[in-house]
Amino acid sequence: MKTVGVIGGMGPAATLDFLTKLHAATPAASEADHLHVITDNHPHRADRNAAMRADGPSPAPSLVKTAIGLAAMGAELLVMPCNAAHAWADDIIAATPVPFVSIIGAAVAAVRAAVPDVTCVGLLAVEATQAARLYHDGFGPGVTILAPDMDVFMPLIFAVKAGDTGADIRARMAGLAAALVAGGAEVLLAACTEVPLVFGPADAAVPVVSATDALVAATLAAAA
Amino acid sequence: MKTVGVIGGMGPAATLDFLTKLHAATPAASEADHLHVITDNHPHRADRNAAMRADGPSPAPSLVKTAIGLAAMGAELLVMPCNAAHAWADDIIAATPVPFVSIIGAAVAAVRAAVPDVTCVGLLAVEATQAARLYHDGFGPGVTILAPDMDVFMPLIFAVKAGDTGADIRARMAGLAAALVAGGAEVLLAACTEVPLVFGPADAAVPVVSATDALVAATLAAAA
Repeated sequence: MKTVGVIGGMGPAATLDFLTKLHAATPAASEADHLHVITDNHPHRADRNAAMRADGPSPAPSLVKTAIGLAAMGAELLVMPCNAAHAWADDIIAATPVPFVSIIGAAVAAVRAAVPDVTCVGLLAVEATQAARLYHDGFGPGVTILAPDMDVFMPLIFAVKAGDTGADIRARMAGLAAALVAGGAEVLLAACTEVPLVFGPADAAVPVVSATDALVAATLAAAA
Repeated sequence: MKTVGVIGGMGPAATLDFLTKLHAATPAASEADHLHVITDNHPHRADRNAAMRADGPSPAPSLVKTAIGLAAMGAELLVMPCNAAHAWADDIIAATPVPFVSIIGAAVAAVRAAVPDVTCVGLLAVEATQAARLYHDGFGPGVTILAPDMDVFMPLIFAVKAGDTGADIRARMAGLAAALVAGGAEVLLAACTEVPLVFGPADAAVPVVSATDALVAATLAAAA
């Protein structure tokens, strides 16, 4: 089993959610069957959304520093449980020879597995992920990407990052999702690692794919 | 806030329990208020109990390697959410100039805060912790330490490490604790980081102190 390096902290609760799901998904009869996982849960990185708007510094130097540190500690593959930060994935990939398992690639594959003939995806993702067209490019031509009402969605994500996962937040996230379905979305992609903390398959009338879960499965496959 | 380095993996679920409790206990209005935490969750270290019996290799080289790696990544204090591994704390302390916050010291202080005139502690801890006399020395003269029936306790811990946190395991742990209280324990110290996964204050007639919780509080205090 390969040692996994996790570029984390965006946000810290989402990183812990990923680690907990990775642990739970690992077939293990004893503690030694679990993966060796090194995590830099660093919540003080430059804001991804501001950077994408050219309204703040880039998170790339911090992400690269973490990648190099994890590689030095023995990481044999790198993952990053934050969709938006994948706008700087090329900087990470260029920084070390350690393979990088993309949450974008994993989530696109998971959507196509759930809805093979998908033509319209509701993308529950933050500004930076939408603006960098990570999933637009990931799905390619033939798939329409619908964004939620970002004036509602962004404050919800910041509320989750601040620790609010209560009923009101959940109801408002479900409302945004329902509007995407009404607009034609055949599947909802939870493509911000805060989203699964307040939204799941029980909250929508169409299939819901969690990018976090897709990265868990891809990490296990790559580490085997 | 200082960057925290976590020497983890003993076991991996106990490390995630510590990280989750540390996150929850951190006063935070936004993600940037959380601590920067670097964790080496490494579940393939040499067995602490076998090493203490001189029946297997020492975990010290692996612990020291992790400590040096965490320091190189920027850790400004080190913690280790595993009581038994503190038998090798001196090796870690000698390996780097980064301050080490001991779970033993934190838990002794928490017991004395809960029961100021304590004279008898029920110590829910594995063989290595008992044999190394970590808490015997930590409390010093005047405090009697009672161990559970180790022939029952050790298989329970290995079951928890294998992922079993069900009702039967919980009932048997509560039974061991009740026997310690019957034997004179004024307080029960959950001094194996697997114990809080299946045993808590509601399961006993005397105060229960979690060494994990004590380390969380000590980590927050040291990082401030």
